[in-house]
Amino acid sequence: MRLALAQIDVTVGDVDGNTAKIRDYLGRAAEARAQVVIFPELAINGYPPEDLLLKTHFLEAGRRALDRVARDVQGMVALVGFAEHAEDVYNSLAVLADGQVQAVYRKMFLPNYGVFDEQRYFQVGDAPAVIGVGGTTIGLTVCEDIWEPGPPASDEALAGAEVIVNISASPYHHGKGAQRERMLVQRARDSLAYVAFCNLVGGQDELLFDGYSLVVDQDGELVARGAQFREELIVCDIDPSTADAARLRDARHRPAARVRRPAVTDLGRLDAPPRHEATAVGGPRAKPLEVDEEVYEALCLGLRDYVDKNGFERVLLGLSGGIDSALTACVAADALGSDRVACAVMPSPHSSPATQSDARTLADNLAIDRFEMRLEPLMAAYDEVLSGPFKGTEAGVAEENIQARIRGNLLMALSNKFGWLVLTTGNKSEYSVGYTTLYGDMAGGFGVLKDVPKTLVYRLSHYRNGLGRHPVIPPAIVERAPSAELRPDQRDTDSLPPYDLLDAILEAYVEEDQGRDQLIRRGMPEDVVDRVIRLVDAAEYKRRQAPPGIKITPKAFGRDRRLPITNRFREGPSDQA
Amino acid sequence: MRLALAQIDVTVGDVDGNTAKIRDYLGRAAEARAQVVIFPELAINGYPPEDLLLKTHFLEAGRRALDRVARDVQGMVALVGFAEHAEDVYNSLAVLADGQVQAVYRKMFLPNYGVFDEQRYFQVGDAPAVIGVGGTTIGLTVCEDIWEPGPPASDEALAGAEVIVNISASPYHHGKGAQRERMLVQRARDSLAYVAFCNLVGGQDELLFDGYSLVVDQDGELVARGAQFREELIVCDIDPSTADAARLRDARHRPAARVRRPAVTDLGRLDAPPRHEATAVGGPRAKPLEVDEEVYEALCLGLRDYVDKNGFERVLLGLSGGIDSALTACVAADALGSDRVACAVMPSPHSSPATQSDARTLADNLAIDRFEMRLEPLMAAYDEVLSGPFKGTEAGVAEENIQARIRGNLLMALSNKFGWLVLTTGNKSEYSVGYTTLYGDMAGGFGVLKDVPKTLVYRLSHYRNGLGRHPVIPPAIVERAPSAELRPDQRDTDSLPPYDLLDAILEAYVEEDQGRDQLIRRGMPEDVVDRVIRLVDAAEYKRRQAPPGIKITPKAFGRDRRLPITNRFREGPSDQA
Repeated sequence: MRLALAQIDVTVGDVDGNTAKIRDYLGRAAEARAQVVIFPELAINGYPPEDLLLKTHFLEAGRRALDRVARDVQGMVALVGFAEHAEDVYNSLAVLADGQVQAVYRKMFLPNYGVFDEQRYFQVGDAPAVIGVGGTTIGLTVCEDIWEPGPPASDEALAGAEVIVNISASPYHHGKGAQRERMLVQRARDSLAYVAFCNLVGGQDELLFDGYSLVVDQDGELVARGAQFREELIVCDIDPSTADAARLRDARHRPAARVRRPAVTDLGRLDAPPRHEATAVGGPRAKPLEVDEEVYEALCLGLRDYVDKNGFERVLLGLSGGIDSALTACVAADALGSDRVACAVMPSPHSSPATQSDARTLADNLAIDRFEMRLEPLMAAYDEVLSGPFKGTEAGVAEENIQARIRGNLLMALSNKFGWLVLTTGNKSEYSVGYTTLYGDMAGGFGVLKDVPKTLVYRLSHYRNGLGRHPVIPPAIVERAPSAELRPDQRDTDSLPPYDLLDAILEAYVEEDQGRDQLIRRGMPEDVVDRVIRLVDAAEYKRRQAPPGIKITPKAFGRDRRLPITNRFREGPSDQA
Repeated sequence: MRLALAQIDVTVGDVDGNTAKIRDYLGRAAEARAQVVIFPELAINGYPPEDLLLKTHFLEAGRRALDRVARDVQGMVALVGFAEHAEDVYNSLAVLADGQVQAVYRKMFLPNYGVFDEQRYFQVGDAPAVIGVGGTTIGLTVCEDIWEPGPPASDEALAGAEVIVNISASPYHHGKGAQRERMLVQRARDSLAYVAFCNLVGGQDELLFDGYSLVVDQDGELVARGAQFREELIVCDIDPSTADAARLRDARHRPAARVRRPAVTDLGRLDAPPRHEATAVGGPRAKPLEVDEEVYEALCLGLRDYVDKNGFERVLLGLSGGIDSALTACVAADALGSDRVACAVMPSPHSSPATQSDARTLADNLAIDRFEMRLEPLMAAYDEVLSGPFKGTEAGVAEENIQARIRGNLLMALSNKFGWLVLTTGNKSEYSVGYTTLYGDMAGGFGVLKDVPKTLVYRLSHYRNGLGRHPVIPPAIVERAPSAELRPDQRDTDSLPPYDLLDAILEAYVEEDQGRDQLIRRGMPEDVVDRVIRLVDAAEYKRRQAPPGIKITPKAFGRDRRLPITNRFREGPSDQA
C-alpha cells in the first residue's frame, strides 16, 4: 500500500489558501500514485484557530471548503483535519473518497494544558473509527489521541486495523521530535500496527510546528521520516500483511471483552485502484538535526512564517554590538534573505566605539541595510524637558530606560514610516528576570530569541559562526562580557548572577515549576535562588506586554505559562510556618 | 438558623493574608452568633490563581493554611473554598467544624470558556455532598455547579437539603448581578430549597468580583442581599422548615430512580450550639445600583485593588483635555483619594489652548498634583535625528505616533523615577479598532477604561458630573468633538465612523461573535461594517501588548477573547464562494 503524508504549512484562518494548498498536494499525491494521502490536524482551518472557533461563519466556511476538497478526491482516499460544526464543535478527521466526505472521526482526547485550550472549543468524540481501503483496515486518530497507550488506537488495532493514522499539529520544542518518535515507536509495538503520523509544519504566532512526520512498522522499525521545518510530500510503501502476521505470532493481540467497537466505513469500492505495485517497504528517511542546528532552523522558520503570513516585506532591528541582536540579525538574514532585513545602529554616549564598530562589521558581513542615528540630541532634550520634575534626584534606572525607549521610538518611527516589522532582540533569561525595558528594547512586533536562554544564545552563535569559512558574527561580540551599555562600564553581572547559574535556576523554576526549597536542595545558592525568584515573579507585568516569540523550550512565556500579575505568593522559609 | 456570608476581598497567592482575613471574619461571625459561616470559592488561594496551581508548594501552603483556619472553628460550621491537592487537584469546599476539616466537596462543573480555564487545573469532582447541622441538611455547591438546573443541587435537594450553599468567584460584567439573582431565584424554586450564595469581592488583574451575595428562600423570595463592590459580613436568619413544608405540598419533589446519593457528613454533634434563637427570617437587603453607577463603582474597585494589591503608592496619568483621560482621572481620584493621583499635561504644537486649559481646570477640580512638560524640544530632536532616514517622505502617522510615544516616555520616566503606576486612558472602542499608539498612549500598567466603549465613557462622565453641585469635568471636555490632537484640526471622525454606530458594530462583532453578513442583515451599513471588521482584526497585535484593564462587558479583550495575531480569515462576500 502506498501512503503519502502531506506535511504542509497552512495559515490560521486562510481557508481558501489552505484549501488550495491541500488540492495541490492531492494532485502531487495522485501523480505519485498514492492510495491514501494524509493531511495534518485542522489542515483546513489552521492550528490553533483559537476563538475563531466561536464564530459560526468561520466553521461554515471551513465546511464548504472541505466539500470542495472532497470533489477533487477520486481514485484515492484523503484524510483531512477540519473543525466540524455539528450539534457541537469537534476536532475531526474527514475521510474523503469518491468525491465526497465518506466518514468523520472525532478526536477523543482534547489537550487543555500547556499551550493547549482544546476543551474551550471542542466536544469530546465518543467512538474510535476504522476504514477499509482495498482490503486493508486503517484506524483513525488525531494528535493527543495517540500520546497515551490505550484507546482509541488499541480498540482500532483490536478491530483489525493494520495501520493507525495520526494527524497532528504537535508544537515544537527542542528535542520534541525525538521524544515523539520514541512514543510512536512504542505505540506501533503496543498495537502491532503500522503508525503513520502526519504533522503540521510552520509557525503560528508563538507556536512552531516542526513537521518530522513518521511511518513506523509494527515492530517499531522506521519506514519513513519527513524533514524538519519544511513542507514535504512523503511517499512511502508499506506492507500491511506484516502486521497481520505479527499478530498471529503474538498472544497479546486478543480482543478483550471490553473493547469498544469502532465505527467502520468500507471504502473497498474505490473505482480506480492505483496501478502501482509496491515492490519494497520504505520511503525517505530524513536525518534528524543536531540540537543547535535544530533550534536555529526552528527560529528561522518561526520568524519567516510570522513575517510572511502577516504580510511584511521587511524587518528591522537595532544592532547594539551585543550578542543577542547579532544572533537575531543572523536568523533574520538567513530566514528572509539579506535584502529583507534592515538594521539601525544607535550609539549613545555610553556605547563603546568597539561595540559600535562590531555592529557595523556584522551588518556588512550580513549585507543588510544600515541606518545610523545618534541618541545624544534626544537624551539632551529629555534631560531638558524632565529637568523640572527630576530636580534634586539622582540619575538611575529612569535615565537608563530613557535611552532604551528612545531607541524603541526610533525603530518604531521607521516601522511606521516604511511598514517594516520591528524585531526585538531580548533573550529568555532577560525576559525571565525583567532585565529589559518596557517600550524600550521590548518595543517590537516579534521576539525571535524570547524563548532562548542566554547560554543557548551563545551556543547558537557559535553554531552559526561555524557554518562558513569566516565567522559572520565578529568574535569580539561573542567574547565580550554582556552589557546593556545604558550607563558607563555597566555589566549584566552587576545586576544578575552569571548566566550559567541563572539559566539553571530559571530552567528549574520557570520550566519545571520547582519551588524555592527544591532548588536549594538541588544545591543552588539560597541567596541567588531567592533573588532570582523575586525578579521572575516581579517581571510578570512586563512580560504581559511583550511581543510574541517562538517557543523552543518545554515551557515558554505566553500561553504556555499563565501567571497572574497581581500575585502575592512569596516563596520562602516563611512558607513552612 | 443563622447564616453569615463572608463576602471578602482576598488576594491571589496571599495565603497568609487571606487566612488572616478569614480568621477575622470567623471571629465576627461568632460574635454575631452565626451557626454557619460561608466564604467564597478558593478563598484561601485567591481566584483565579492560574498557573500557581501547577506549583505543588503553592497547593501545600494553602492546605497548611486551611488546617490553621480549621483550628479556629469551634461551635459553628465554616464552609471555605480552597485548592485541594489529593491524588489530583480539585476546586473544593472544605467543611470546618470542631477544629478540623470534617468533609470536602469537590466542584463538579468546571468552566472552561470566556475568562475561565478551570479544566486546565482541576479534576472534576464526582459526588454531590450534604452536611447535617443541628437537624438541618445543607447541600454544597461551588460556583458553576449551580448555573445549570440539575445535579449536584437537585440531587442534594432530593436527599433532603433544605439549604443549598453556593460558594463563588463569579466575575462581574454590567448587569451580571441581576442576571445571577434571577438564576438563583430559579434554582431555589427548582429545588424548593433556600439558596445561600456567597461571592468573592475585589479586583484581580482583568477580573472584578462584585460581591452581591444573596440568600433566597424556597419560593425564590429574597431573604438577604449583600452590597456590591465591598466587603461585608451578611448575617441573616432562615427557617429551613419552610422548605420542608413546601416540599410536602409539591408533587415534583419526589426522588427519581436515578438520583445520585450525595456523600453525607453529620455535624449534629456540635458541642457549643449557639444561644441565639431566630425570631424572624431575614437579613440586610442592599439595593442594587443603577447601571452607570454600577460600572463607575466597578472601575473604582478594580483600579483600587490593582494599585493596592500590587503595592503602588500613587498613580500617574496624562491629561489631554479629552474625555477619556478626564474620566480616568475622576475614577482614580475617587478610588484612591486625590493625594494618590498625579497627572501630567504635555502640550504639543497641535494641542489647542482650550484643551490644555480644560485639563488644568480638571486637575484643579480634582485637587491632584500636576506636572507640565512641553513636547516641542523633543519633537524637534526626533525630527533632527530622523531627518536622514525620513528624507523625502511626507509627514504622516509615523510623526503623529512620535508625539504619542514621547508622552508615553515622559510618563514612564516619572514612573521609573518615583515608583508610580502609569494609567492608560484609552477606551474599548479605540482598542477595538487600533486607534491607539503602541508604546504611546498605550504605555502604562493598567487601562482603567480598556473595556468601556466610548458611548459609555460619555454616560459615565455625565453620571460623575451629576454627583456634586458643580461638574468636576469641565463641560467643554464633554461637549468637544473627540480628537487625538496629533495633527492640526484632527478629529476622530476623520478616521472612524461616529461612535454610536461604531459601538453598535463592535458590540455585535466583538462581544457576540457575529459575522459580517449578520451585521449587514441587522441593517448596519456594509461599507462601515467591512471597514470596522478589518480594523478590529488588524489591531490584534496591538492589543496583545496592551496593559490589563477591568472587564465590565460580557466580553473583554484579554483572556476573555483569544484571537490569533496571524489570522487570514477575512469576512466578506467571498466567504460565500
